[in-house]
Formats: sequence, structure tokens, C-alpha cells
Amino acid sequence: MKTIKGSITTPKGFKAAGIHCGIKKSGKFDLGIITSDTPCPTACVFTKNSVKAAPLIVSQNHLRDAIAQAIIVNSGNANCFTGKFGLTYAEKTTQLLAQELNIKTSDVVVTSTGIIGKPLPIKKIEKGVPACVKQLSPKGAAAFEKAILTTDLVKKNVCVTLTLAGKKVTIAGCAKGSGMIEPNMATMLGFVTTDAAISKTLLKTALKEATNKSFNRITVDGCMSTNDMVVLMANGAAKNPSITKKNKDYFKFVEALHYVCLDLAKKIVYDGEGAKLFIEIHVKAAKTQKQADQVAKAIANSNLVKTANYGPDPNWGRVAAAAGSLGFKGINEKTLKLKFDYAKKDHVSIYVDLNLGSYESIAYTSDLTKKYITINNQYN
Amino acid sequence: MKTIKGSITTPKGFKAAGIHCGIKKSGKFDLGIITSDTPCPTACVFTKNSVKAAPLIVSQNHLRDAIAQAIIVNSGNANCFTGKFGLTYAEKTTQLLAQELNIKTSDVVVTSTGIIGKPLPIKKIEKGVPACVKQLSPKGAAAFEKAILTTDLVKKNVCVTLTLAGKKVTIAGCAKGSGMIEPNMATMLGFVTTDAAISKTLLKTALKEATNKSFNRITVDGCMSTNDMVVLMANGAAKNPSITKKNKDYFKFVEALHYVCLDLAKKIVYDGEGAKLFIEIHVKAAKTQKQADQVAKAIANSNLVKTANYGPDPNWGRVAAAAGSLGFKGINEKTLKLKFDYAKKDHVSIYVDLNLGSYESIAYTSDLTKKYITINNQYN
Repeated sequence: MKTIKGSITTPKGFKAAGIHCGIKKSGKFDLGIITSDTPCPTACVFTKNSVKAAPLIVSQNHLRDAIAQAIIVNSGNANCFTGKFGLTYAEKTTQLLAQELNIKTSDVVVTSTGIIGKPLPIKKIEKGVPACVKQLSPKGAAAFEKAILTTDLVKKNVCVTLTLAGKKVTIAGCAKGSGMIEPNMATMLGFVTTDAAISKTLLKTALKEATNKSFNRITVDGCMSTNDMVVLMANGAAKNPSITKKNKDYFKFVEALHYVCLDLAKKIVYDGEGAKLFIEIHVKAAKTQKQADQVAKAIANSNLVKTANYGPDPNWGRVAAAAGSLGFKGINEKTLKLKFDYAKKDHVSIYVDLNLGSYESIAYTSDLTKKYITINNQYN
Repeated sequence: MKTIKGSITTPKGFKAAGIHCGIKKSGKFDLGIITSDTPCPTACVFTKNSVKAAPLIVSQNHLRDAIAQAIIVNSGNANCFTGKFGLTYAEKTTQLLAQELNIKTSDVVVTSTGIIGKPLPIKKIEKGVPACVKQLSPKGAAAFEKAILTTDLVKKNVCVTLTLAGKKVTIAGCAKGSGMIEPNMATMLGFVTTDAAISKTLLKTALKEATNKSFNRITVDGCMSTNDMVVLMANGAAKNPSITKKNKDYFKFVEALHYVCLDLAKKIVYDGEGAKLFIEIHVKAAKTQKQADQVAKAIANSNLVKTANYGPDPNWGRVAAAAGSLGFKGINEKTLKLKFDYAKKDHVSIYVDLNLGSYESIAYTSDLTKKYITINNQYN
């Protein structure tokens, strides 16, 4: 596996586009489309928030057969908490794109990010869809990447290649997210394309595995969005023998996919609202995987750990208190060992040894700064 | 029941004192004692943090018989993460006071608040104990209240009287806490005295009930301390017929005790680090008590809810996202109703109707401000 300069249209058989259709008053891009030349296995993970935005519900329905050919995303409006019109408009959005592309409505995935609770301006999307489809091209990735951003400071993308049974396969992704980005705004979105040939079932398993160890290990402010979603399309254009078993090729694919997801996840943390510091929490020797995961996240979500001054005298009292806050038996003064590594100016690694077992986990977060407060308070 | 001006020495048969013994470099008071004229039923609740400070472990041992006669507390050092010397010094502290008062060591409760991980300066406590005992008086409450503070901006106390079987009974309390108050510091401490006569068993039950609906419903920064502790002494000096059953008197006592605990808890939130706003979250119509409690706390601990601008356009998207973040089935757009009441400038009430059942809960928190970041970051 090696990383290359590339984007979601680098894998064979994908096109993308992005335009301004009028949702954002700033005139910035707010509508994006990705298409595969053929309908293809598509896996998706959704927010675990019980308050789910309308487009996620529509996409879940459309992906019951795990096949899709196009993704449409708007920024500037989350289409969440928008009543039955929310569902109608999300469904309508997929119909508009399906008509324009002459594909099945159920092969369109839809997602949104932006203000919660305001009606989706469907007229603007009606006008925007044909205009955006006209722009679809193998060179459209940069425009798409722009169309999914809200107040992210940087675009986030990654591309890797690997060889499966002698065939070159490419996996690429882009993402948006830096907390609940704008006032009233939410959402981490990830889009991954690959020309690998792989079965629907294994694609889903692979995405789950990769997501659990990447997007699910980051936290900017501990606040779960109503619109989080990662979608992965695999169109098989690389013509490798289709992966249908958990064989060597599968594990190579998962490794590369994990790399892609982790790279995007870390880029979201680096672009965390107001973030100046990247904080890695490594937990080892936990009794169970769940314990390792929970301890890492508890430390990552501690406001006191996130505001600590990582100066010459690191504040390990706060880390110990956060590790103990879950009340796990056996995590106490006698067992707990802590180590700090902050060689780089904008990066600190915290090593937490629980001395209880053999499970380990990791969590990534950013520091909590005055700028975060400004971003999230001074908006009206 | 009525509230009166009074302190922890207003109930009959209690004395208190506070002095500077040299732990705090500032010269501020750092050692406090409360005594009852007689050994008496004493109930205590401790932090659920699995990393527990040494004095809490010693106090737990001493309270196995639910009887105590004195409480000693130092501020400026948490005696937590201090190895076996921590336990030795905490035990030693109780011995010093027991000798001076000529009472049993096991009748002394000890607690500490301050820096984690530094050895308790036991020599200073050795010198301080006799000096502090000399100051013990029914007028010593104000000095004690000073001795338990770290960076709290205000002292927190409350006093109520009620009549039980024709006898006037008094319950009074004081507390410290405003988050993890100083750099490396922690802890919410509550001290409640009453001259009511009540059995050890019912005293414990009463304190648990009152604590669950007061101290356990507040959060300043979601960070659980290693030293949290609330202690309640009931010396029976009011000479009411001792409460030994859950009769009318018991419920009157619990009601008054709850009032005292809730008043102190709210005062901690008002004095929250950097706090400018008091936020109440009322959850109703939950399916279970646990669900009601968890939803209220999830909203109270959401950094986005705590940084929201409670201006003319309240940010209910953030409240909905926090309510849904626990993933409870049935909490969604269709069921959730939200209402904001922010009539007062420094006080906002958020009403959350889950429309699922009949349980309700409440949580109290403060806003998250730039001052919180300053307090917790700029200390070295």
C-alpha cells in the first residue's frame, strides 16, 4: 500500500461535481454529487444518535440492497428536525438526481449538513441538480470537496493504492467536520470511493471495522451529531478478482481502507474548532475491549484534560481522575501508570497503562480553547 | 420547615474551627474541624470515582459503624495518588485529632481537597491540629467555612428548622466546590449537621435520597473528582423522639435535608468556574427514571449546550442532538418537545418533554465560558 496524490475520482469509474445552488448566503459551494459509472456495492454507517436527520432515514432505506450509483449532498442545511416535509424533501432530492442521471431513485444516497430545524430549500435544489450534473467529471473532486464544507478551515482528502491479485486498486476519500461546526450546525461526513471489486457483505464488514478504529475514535467536543454518516462505494472497475471471502486480499483491502479512514479522521481533529493541539490517548492493558475504548474516550472527553496546560509539568491528576470516573473496579492508584510524550509543539501523546489485562485502544481529540467558545457562542 | 440565618454550629451540640496551618502558601485558612459533643450517627457518601483519595478510604473504614464525633478537613492538598504514605498520613491525621479531643480514632472522619499527587505535609498538620482544637467553639462555623475553600469565590451555607413531634430541629450545611477548582485541584465537599435524633440506618437512607436529588444532579464540567464527599452528623441534641421508622417525621426530615443539600448544590453551580449563567434542565415523560436522569445529564454536559448563546433565538438543535446522543429508542424528532424559559438574565430553564412515559428528572449546570478555559489552562 502506498499513499499518492489523488482524490475520490482517482479510483476508476467515478465522477464528481460541486456547485453553489443558493442555500448558503455566502455564495460558497453547497451542492455536491458523486457518481459511479455503474451501480455498485455501497456500504454506509450512520450516526447512533436517536434523533436522526431525514436524509439519513431515506439513505438507510435506499441502501437496504447495499447497491448505489450516486451520492448527493448539500451543505448549509441539515434537514433535521424538519417534520414530514423533511422526509419528503430528502426523498425528492434523490428523485431529482435519479431522473437527471436516468438511474433508479433507490440507487441514490442523500446526506445533508448545516442548520438544524429549518426547512430544506427544495426549490434551490430542484434548480441546482441539473446544473450540478452538467459539471460531473473525473476532475470534479475538488469542487465536491468544497461543496461539503461548512466552517472547516481546510479540505480533507486522502488517496492510497494497493495491489490485489496483480491488479492496481485505488481507495480515496474526503471528509468534512470540525465539531458542531457552525452555530446550530453539526456533522461529520465521510465519502470513500474505491475501484476494488468486493462483495456487498464484505464491503459492509470492512467499513464497520475501519470506522470503529478511525472515525469512532475521535472526539472534538463530545457532542454527537444528528447527521453523521460515512459512505463507501466500490465499483469494481479495477477488475481485481472480486473479494468474496476474508482472504489475504480482504485483509490488505481493510488495512488500506483503515488507513484512509484514520487519515481523514485525524484531519478532522486537526481542524477541530479552535484547536491548537492534537491529543492522542493510548490505553493499554485493559480488562476488556469495551473498557479500553471507554477509558480512552472518557479521557478524550474530559474538559479538564482538554484545557490542561501541557507545559513542563503535565497535569496527570486530571487524566487519572478521568480514567477513574467510569467507576471500573481495579482502576485505581495502585494499578494506574501514566506517561506523557509531548515532543512536538502541537501534538501530545498520553499513555495510560491500566495493568488489568491485554486490551488496548486509542482516542484522538483536540484541545479546548477560547476560540471554541467564541465559535460556539458568538453567533447572534 | 423554614430557612433561617445560621450555620453548621446552629444545630445544638456542635462546635467548629478553622485556621491556617501552613499548607496553602497564600496564608489562607487550610485546616478545619467540626465536632459533636457526643459520638453520633453519621452518614457519608463518597465519590464513585474508582481512583479514590486516601482520606476517603480511611473515612470509609472509620464509618463502618456509622458513628463519628469529629470531622477534620484540610484544603490545599488532596492526598490523592500519594501511595502508601497517603493512607498512613490520612490515618495519622485522625489519630492526632482523636488524641487532642480524647475520643476514639475510629470516630474521626477525614477529608482533603487540593493538589493531586503531592505528599500531604503531615508536620504542618501535626502542629495545626492542637492549634485548631483550641479554636473550637459554637461560633467557629465561619472559620471552618473559610478553611475548606480553594478558589471558590463565595462561601456556601444554608440552615433550616423544622418541628418533629413538637421539638424544634435544625439542619445546617456548608459546601465547597466550583469544578476542578484550581490547577490540579478537585472536589466537591459537603458538611451537614443536625441535632435531630434519627437511627443510623435511616440517616444513611435519608442522605442517599437527598444526595441523589441534589449533589448528584449538578455538573460544572462533567469531570468527576477523586475526593468528592458529603458527610452528615445527627447528634440528637434536639431531643425529638428518635426517628426509627419511615414515618411522618422521617419524611419531614428528608424533605428538609433535601432542601439543604439542593441549596448547597445550586450554590456550587452558581459559583462554577467562570460561570455567568445558571442552566436548569427539566426532563419529563421519560420511560424510566434512569433514562430521565441520563438525558438530563447528557444535555447538562454538552459543551455545545453550555456554550450556546441564550439570546432571542435559543439553540434547541443542540439540545435535541444531546438528548438523542444516548441512542435511546423512541427519542426522536416525532416525540421530542422542547421549551426554553430565560426570563432572568443569568438563569435559563430548558424543558424537555420525551413523550415516552411518566418519569422526570432535573440537572443543574453552568455555562462554559472563556474564563473556565483561562482558569484551567493558565496556571503554569
